[in-house]
Amino acid sequence: MIVLGIDPGLANTGYGVVARRGGRLVALDGGVIETAATIAAERRLTDLHAALSEVVEEHAPDAMALEDLYFGANVRSAFAVGQARGVAMLVAGQAAVECFSYTPQQVKAAVCGSGRAAKEQVSWMVKTLLSLPSEPERDHAADALAVAICHCNRAPLARAVEVAGG
Amino acid sequence: MIVLGIDPGLANTGYGVVARRGGRLVALDGGVIETAATIAAERRLTDLHAALSEVVEEHAPDAMALEDLYFGANVRSAFAVGQARGVAMLVAGQAAVECFSYTPQQVKAAVCGSGRAAKEQVSWMVKTLLSLPSEPERDHAADALAVAICHCNRAPLARAVEVAGG
Repeated sequence: MIVLGIDPGLANTGYGVVARRGGRLVALDGGVIETAATIAAERRLTDLHAALSEVVEEHAPDAMALEDLYFGANVRSAFAVGQARGVAMLVAGQAAVECFSYTPQQVKAAVCGSGRAAKEQVSWMVKTLLSLPSEPERDHAADALAVAICHCNRAPLARAVEVAGG
Repeated sequence: MIVLGIDPGLANTGYGVVARRGGRLVALDGGVIETAATIAAERRLTDLHAALSEVVEEHAPDAMALEDLYFGANVRSAFAVGQARGVAMLVAGQAAVECFSYTPQQVKAAVCGSGRAAKEQVSWMVKTLLSLPSEPERDHAADALAVAICHCNRAPLARAVEVAGG
């Protein structure tokens, strides 16, 4: 299973590609897609769409995992992040990749064992769980890898419940 | 000048195409793009993208006009509307159509002469200004036509100021 985690934003969208290989998780790719503040928002979204489409094409993920709304956000930032998130979800939809949303608490719990873990713990656990040589340089990339890990670790359980229920 | 007005939403996106012909405004098209609540959000955004892309291809607008954030919105609805708005702006960006944002107050002022006009006034003025046989059936279509009218009526002034300033 290959999962593309996304931490969406107009200026910086973090992405992280995580695969489950046997019993362990490996990072296939990760980084930050930046768009230039000097160009119009519709062109920035176009650049984001093109860059994310390339990532999807290259890795052919089975799922896209996104962090759900951060509840501390204000209306304006929720609106702005929503625009980038819509474009990311569109990239998934156009490639017939299913999207899954996780709250920040769910992501932290899946990665650190506690929904209240500090931000630095997330980055450190991402490094540890994926056996990376160092922590991701950018927070957005770490957050994207974390939500991908969250989906990898929860998805088998979700399926197990489904099978048990059916 | 042809302007595509958009009232974005995941379930219902209103659109309205308005052209300035000589001194008057005419409606070329208008309606509501609905997406099925039974399918996943990423597929709904994909359907919205496809339908809006068709509208842009058919009418080749010079500009897309969108209502800015409604400030009374809560964080969750701003996030949801933002996702659809991002996809609409992407459609514009991919076709190299410039986007313009107007607050609800600016739209009402441009259409009704008062930023505090009631919702029913907007629909009635849209009918009157565009010489429609009746008011638009759907509120989302009326709102989309209103923001297109707003841009048509403000754009020449905006350009005049630019020329004077330059």
